[in-house]
Amino acid sequence: MDANQIEQLSGFLKPEQLLTSPEELSVYAYDGTAMLHQLPDCVVLPENARQVSNVLRWANEARVPVVTRGSGTGLSGGSVPVAGGLVLCLVRLNRILEVDTRNLTMTVEPGVLTQAISDAATAAGLFYPPDPGSIKISTIGGNVAENSGGLRGLKYGVTRDYVMALEVVLADGRILNTGTKCVKDVAGFTLKDLFIGSEGTLGVITRITLKLIPQPAAKRTLLAMYDKMTDAAQTISAIIEDKIIPCTLEFLDRTTIECVEGYAKIGLPTDAEAVLLMEVDGHPAQVEEQAQRLEGLATAHHARQVRRAEDAAEALRLATARRSAFSALARLAPTVILEDVTVPRSELAKMVAFVQEVGERYQLRIGTFGHMGDGNLHPTFLTDERNEEEIQRVEKAMREVFEYAVQLGGTITGEHGVGLAKKPYLAGALGPVALDVMRRVRKGFDPNGILNPGKIFD
Amino acid sequence: MDANQIEQLSGFLKPEQLLTSPEELSVYAYDGTAMLHQLPDCVVLPENARQVSNVLRWANEARVPVVTRGSGTGLSGGSVPVAGGLVLCLVRLNRILEVDTRNLTMTVEPGVLTQAISDAATAAGLFYPPDPGSIKISTIGGNVAENSGGLRGLKYGVTRDYVMALEVVLADGRILNTGTKCVKDVAGFTLKDLFIGSEGTLGVITRITLKLIPQPAAKRTLLAMYDKMTDAAQTISAIIEDKIIPCTLEFLDRTTIECVEGYAKIGLPTDAEAVLLMEVDGHPAQVEEQAQRLEGLATAHHARQVRRAEDAAEALRLATARRSAFSALARLAPTVILEDVTVPRSELAKMVAFVQEVGERYQLRIGTFGHMGDGNLHPTFLTDERNEEEIQRVEKAMREVFEYAVQLGGTITGEHGVGLAKKPYLAGALGPVALDVMRRVRKGFDPNGILNPGKIFD
Repeated sequence: MDANQIEQLSGFLKPEQLLTSPEELSVYAYDGTAMLHQLPDCVVLPENARQVSNVLRWANEARVPVVTRGSGTGLSGGSVPVAGGLVLCLVRLNRILEVDTRNLTMTVEPGVLTQAISDAATAAGLFYPPDPGSIKISTIGGNVAENSGGLRGLKYGVTRDYVMALEVVLADGRILNTGTKCVKDVAGFTLKDLFIGSEGTLGVITRITLKLIPQPAAKRTLLAMYDKMTDAAQTISAIIEDKIIPCTLEFLDRTTIECVEGYAKIGLPTDAEAVLLMEVDGHPAQVEEQAQRLEGLATAHHARQVRRAEDAAEALRLATARRSAFSALARLAPTVILEDVTVPRSELAKMVAFVQEVGERYQLRIGTFGHMGDGNLHPTFLTDERNEEEIQRVEKAMREVFEYAVQLGGTITGEHGVGLAKKPYLAGALGPVALDVMRRVRKGFDPNGILNPGKIFD
Repeated sequence: MDANQIEQLSGFLKPEQLLTSPEELSVYAYDGTAMLHQLPDCVVLPENARQVSNVLRWANEARVPVVTRGSGTGLSGGSVPVAGGLVLCLVRLNRILEVDTRNLTMTVEPGVLTQAISDAATAAGLFYPPDPGSIKISTIGGNVAENSGGLRGLKYGVTRDYVMALEVVLADGRILNTGTKCVKDVAGFTLKDLFIGSEGTLGVITRITLKLIPQPAAKRTLLAMYDKMTDAAQTISAIIEDKIIPCTLEFLDRTTIECVEGYAKIGLPTDAEAVLLMEVDGHPAQVEEQAQRLEGLATAHHARQVRRAEDAAEALRLATARRSAFSALARLAPTVILEDVTVPRSELAKMVAFVQEVGERYQLRIGTFGHMGDGNLHPTFLTDERNEEEIQRVEKAMREVFEYAVQLGGTITGEHGVGLAKKPYLAGALGPVALDVMRRVRKGFDPNGILNPGKIFD
């Protein structure tokens, strides 16, 4: 962008809404992904959909790349402005517009923090289930753009399952409304679903109507420790075959257990090979029954110990330990690459063993944790980006992991998105026909390719 | 299509897979929608995806319209071949390929009856919740293409919520696979969701992987009778505000009650203004508590009587009575037009009153029943297509009903699709931007417009 273009842009905005100094721009050069950064030419902080529309109309005519972002917690480089241009940061669109207890919906702007949405739902006696690891700092707009998952995917689904309607500004500045507060709505193609998970390449989301559900009346948290990984995996299979759907079914491997225990000090056995965190919620009678069955199944599959949280405080402590896995691992190495391969549940044991084997073969340190219940694993590579030789080994190992996941009927990304980080693997995972169709869809929405260029398949 | 084209087609097919005689074609000229019929030029009965691919590749080159159908139970004219051409009837792709109890999925061909899927899930101790009114004769391919709803939408969602992966043949004959057995999968745009509810305009679905869930352990069925419609509506609001999500929350108005009682003889009071059918399912303790609360809420809102099904047989009888509403109404008039406007739950009372008022104003007989829990109403116009003057009044009344639904934040179709029947109202409901975007999406999938031409917005 040249000085003349910056000048034109400033015409739509108040001075404090346009950042151009290198110091200001530098914090918009990266997101939560290791090893990716690129300075934008400027940052725009719009305050409403009309401003977003004006900026996009101008950018579309000027052919200036636009990268939309919120808090920048993404883990696939989706909001790194690789093509330069303009970063559209939506954190000032941060109002909760409505909590509708008659229709069980909440309508918000995209810059609202996910935690604030969860809190507002709770305050109304309701529940917003999606809980990405970054819930305290991520924005709901980013969650929708990435179709974020979280710890409750198995029972409650992901962000997509809670989006009822969207207001979106298209690349040419037109404002589109799609979806309603109706549980059933089949009038035309589901454009709403297409925007969810499109990673900023189809439009800029400026308003979101979310579905809420009643709060579960009770919850029980259990922790099971294992000497053998295969026993933990078999416990998971037994739970599903017993027709129990826990709200959380999380797993930590030995490397992660050591890190988390060093960090959180909650009494995890650092010599255990696997720990399962299990939570069931719902009606108190059901929760009690299911907790007992979980305990029985874990014991039957040779858990060394099963610990039941005695109260809400202990449950929170155990869950927080799991939530701190990424931060705990991040202390161990200068560069931490968090992956999110996902496989059908039945293939989990194979996938976990393969990650371990690959790590040994390439002499890498990998901590694996993740959402066992929904097949979503986070092999976390502990490395150092200054060590080029090691990074090459990491890349080879990651490619093998992705290819094996696809071979098992899985996917290269369960909840982090493709962005830049998974772009080299997408064609292998989806094949040429799907890619061609996606490119055509994108062309229909953004003929000039100004929205988040260079991402996903671009 | 000319004789030469029919000759070319027969090259891909066994003789019994290609129908061309007028007697054979006549049964493919209509679906479940009143007043719509058009003879196709031929009917093709493929047996596998490869044949579908060959036929589409040929049709795309020859620019011959292709209308895909299953049992033809649609209620918006979606499978009526208005542009002539070729009807692709998928009833011979009718195998259940896999029931995967480890991943809780079922993989099927599109011609399998919905009831057979429900039965196969039950046989495996699992549950496939979507239950469109036509469940006994509709095919799953049609359910996916229309994103069918049913009686359990409020608690369990619609067909979309149970589709994990699709194999689709594109207009040019290429075969696309989209989705996995993974609960979480964000690799690229969600093409799968785009096909669901696209009414045969984006591709031909040849394989479907469905999500199954554990069976609820218990169920309770209640019937509440009211002298005043507003009391029934207020009961619904009170239930939702009490944070109860019944699996079924159905409503019949007086006209429908009279018809159903005349047909099913289950002891409904024919002088009641409204009847609510309520079902709760889940853990036995929860079901018992919720059933008591429902009874209390109905009584508090002046239900004249609340009847609790004593056993499964009585529950089935009550539910079957509701399911027979359409058939019962259909006996009363030569032409029955079943609509499916949907509004946010909070607006239900207004919508029901408006339908009643419109019926009086245009001197029409309208029976209204539907899914109160999810805001999906079925105002059913009892008329005679030979009476042109009355049909004009019906059309005026329907337009008013649709416009009012949209005004209340609702939609012109909750579960039947746009097809031909709702096409005139779509632009008013969605606006020009959404329509333009949908047309562009369609163009990307089917540049020559051979798939179900003349439908939705075409």
